Amino acid sequence: MTLNAVLDKIDQNLDAATDRLLDLLRIPSISTDPAFAADCQRAADWLVDDLKTIGFNASKRDTTGHPMVMAHADGPGTHVMFYGHYDVQPVDPLELWDRPPFDPALEKTAAGMVIRGRGSSDDKGQLMTFVEACRAWVQVHGSLPIKVSIFFEGEEESGSPSLVPFMQQNAAELTADVALICDTGLFQSAVPAITTQLRGMVTEEFSIKGADRDLHSGMYGGLAGNPIHVLSRLIAGLHDETGRITLDGFYDDVPEVTDEIRSQWQNLGFDHAGYLGDVGLSVPAGETGRTPLEMIWSRPTCEVNGIWGGYTGDGFKTVLPAEAHAKLSFRLVGQQDPKKIHAAFVNYVNSKLPADFSAEFAPSHGDPASQMSIENPAFELARQALSDEWPRPASYIGCGGSIPIAGHFKTVLEMDAMLIGFGRDDDAIHSPNEKYDLESFHKGTRSWARILAALAK
Amino acid sequence: MTLNAVLDKIDQNLDAATDRLLDLLRIPSISTDPAFAADCQRAADWLVDDLKTIGFNASKRDTTGHPMVMAHADGPGTHVMFYGHYDVQPVDPLELWDRPPFDPALEKTAAGMVIRGRGSSDDKGQLMTFVEACRAWVQVHGSLPIKVSIFFEGEEESGSPSLVPFMQQNAAELTADVALICDTGLFQSAVPAITTQLRGMVTEEFSIKGADRDLHSGMYGGLAGNPIHVLSRLIAGLHDETGRITLDGFYDDVPEVTDEIRSQWQNLGFDHAGYLGDVGLSVPAGETGRTPLEMIWSRPTCEVNGIWGGYTGDGFKTVLPAEAHAKLSFRLVGQQDPKKIHAAFVNYVNSKLPADFSAEFAPSHGDPASQMSIENPAFELARQALSDEWPRPASYIGCGGSIPIAGHFKTVLEMDAMLIGFGRDDDAIHSPNEKYDLESFHKGTRSWARILAALAK
Repeated sequence: MTLNAVLDKIDQNLDAATDRLLDLLRIPSISTDPAFAADCQRAADWLVDDLKTIGFNASKRDTTGHPMVMAHADGPGTHVMFYGHYDVQPVDPLELWDRPPFDPALEKTAAGMVIRGRGSSDDKGQLMTFVEACRAWVQVHGSLPIKVSIFFEGEEESGSPSLVPFMQQNAAELTADVALICDTGLFQSAVPAITTQLRGMVTEEFSIKGADRDLHSGMYGGLAGNPIHVLSRLIAGLHDETGRITLDGFYDDVPEVTDEIRSQWQNLGFDHAGYLGDVGLSVPAGETGRTPLEMIWSRPTCEVNGIWGGYTGDGFKTVLPAEAHAKLSFRLVGQQDPKKIHAAFVNYVNSKLPADFSAEFAPSHGDPASQMSIENPAFELARQALSDEWPRPASYIGCGGSIPIAGHFKTVLEMDAMLIGFGRDDDAIHSPNEKYDLESFHKGTRSWARILAALAK
Repeated sequence: MTLNAVLDKIDQNLDAATDRLLDLLRIPSISTDPAFAADCQRAADWLVDDLKTIGFNASKRDTTGHPMVMAHADGPGTHVMFYGHYDVQPVDPLELWDRPPFDPALEKTAAGMVIRGRGSSDDKGQLMTFVEACRAWVQVHGSLPIKVSIFFEGEEESGSPSLVPFMQQNAAELTADVALICDTGLFQSAVPAITTQLRGMVTEEFSIKGADRDLHSGMYGGLAGNPIHVLSRLIAGLHDETGRITLDGFYDDVPEVTDEIRSQWQNLGFDHAGYLGDVGLSVPAGETGRTPLEMIWSRPTCEVNGIWGGYTGDGFKTVLPAEAHAKLSFRLVGQQDPKKIHAAFVNYVNSKLPADFSAEFAPSHGDPASQMSIENPAFELARQALSDEWPRPASYIGCGGSIPIAGHFKTVLEMDAMLIGFGRDDDAIHSPNEKYDLESFHKGTRSWARILAALAK
């Protein structure tokens, strides 16, 4: 059996693979801080060199920021494009780390062995699961079972400024049959999963303006309107008593989940009480009649993320402010069009302004939701491969947040992406003492080996 | 005619009186800045010395802050207690002054002669109108027509920390038949006025708390409640669609203005369009069915003075914040009890909190409204005296703000106060280029001379 030999090789390689990962983790490739620009170059070089040892045609590509890594290896049939990122988050506050963030090590914990260090889970450990799977395939068989390209970014933690231009300029080279993205986790740290729908987003920042200056509430209070009151009434009116958003046409392009997906989600046994309990809450507060997973995965939202106006310092100032402000975001699903949602929002605000008030809107930003087409047979093949590796069957899941790269593959290159990752909820990504379970690293590598085999069928 | 001789003397004295005021204005008695503490002492000494030259038994009284000035002069019949404050506002931004703020001068302007300098209107120029009236009476008649006491404070611009303790400790010395306060203005810069009702105030600062940490709106948006939404709904619900405040029992102790007062207010011909137009507004936004003057003088209000929560910096952070906050104040009228209003507010908030949310309240502060008893004959005598001096008849008016000293005279010493002042709306008090019209100073002095005569009847 060709696959079994590869899986055995992965098991034998585990110590060496771990050492390679520790080596990569020692490079402090923090992308947000210009002081670490040379380290980002070093991480890219390290990956190029390593990929060359497996037989990839690998190269570092300059951008206006940190470089990309591109690598190609020929193979029969299906062509996959694997994405990961080699840059990491800053490490502040340093004093909360139990060991230096860039002096990684294997640690024994009550829950098993972990690889501790910045980037171990997000995303160096995860991207190396794929690299190690390719290595094992090449070591056992001399070549890969399908055509594989690899695309590593170095700016994911700093807003990916070079990503879309690079994808546009290198569209032919980056296009494959399906994209693979390893930057997510096991569902509830236990169930292997392929994320097939991600919510989109529209952001709005706006100001409500009344008088042309701040007023004294003794001189004008009761006579002049108050922008904070106007803003509060606007926000209060964005949802009805069932939690639905009141903008005109907001739900026009919102689909219901299919019965197949609904049934998979039901089988996940999502512990919403635990999920809410972790943050001190107990009651799902979303739309009436929706399950908790629908609320976070398949229903659109409208949330005020920030609000400010008037006097907010110590003590008291009895001011009627001239302006009040809010930042607000919509999470989008299905075919909701960011431009249409923005227009509906602007229309909502303007239609409800009292006399003498005006609204100003900062430029709105938006990305549509990503809905993968699971009719592509690669999805079901990969799901089966994951189910073979893990104790529990793999599931298609949603994601309440946005993973911009998945949307870019879709909009720039018209490729579906399979988001498959092995992180755990307690990995502390972006936080002190980040870790990656050795089991995630090991079984993640084995999972990719199985998926490569499955896609070769 | 005894009064006419006094008025003539005031006219003859005008240049000398102006020079005295300029002298006092040269002392930079800024009470908020410890660097000027010695200047506050100097201003108090200057006043004590000047009052002694008129025959007052005057003395400086130490407090834990800046000193008080107390002065007494015997006379027949009615006993009045005159209040003013010798401290002034800071002068920042200095670069916006057309001349040094403590190098005052007479200036010719299109609207007539003005005295330019910090404190010219607030309150040194105003308090000296009363001193100069007393001086003229003494110069002409050798004595005052009634018993006069004077009480000058040096901490009015810094929250009057010593005022109430001083009043309590010196209650007997400070008690008279009626208090006179010269720290207000002509109504719309034209109509001499006695302020007979001032709104009280209750301040509230409170926080709405949801989850025990900030949440990512991708992971929790749609499932977890948002404290900014809860806060906005609370604020939106504080007023009904007619602009009335919805707290239980809020209007229980709110009286209607009497027909006599209503008729005086109607005669004022308040230019609410101009008043609103000055600040870029056009439409009275208060309670349906109330006149603009009722809205600011005789109706209670509820205004949010500040609001904040979530991410308010540059760019975007899709956070569901753990908390949201607001500062809010009620203006009170009639017999509204600050404690009762606070309790009704706390009850309102707590009764409307959704599951999983809590509210925290900072200590509330409150003072009741002040309503002067115009049955005291001094009011009508003073109003007639003012009407004799000025081109337009004097009126009883309200004040939407609080003037704490008026409340203290009432609550600590059980005295009514007549608030009579000669400032104009364009005096720029608290701002660069503060001025006091020479006409205000001159006719203000003559007004007090007339009031002293009237109260002697």
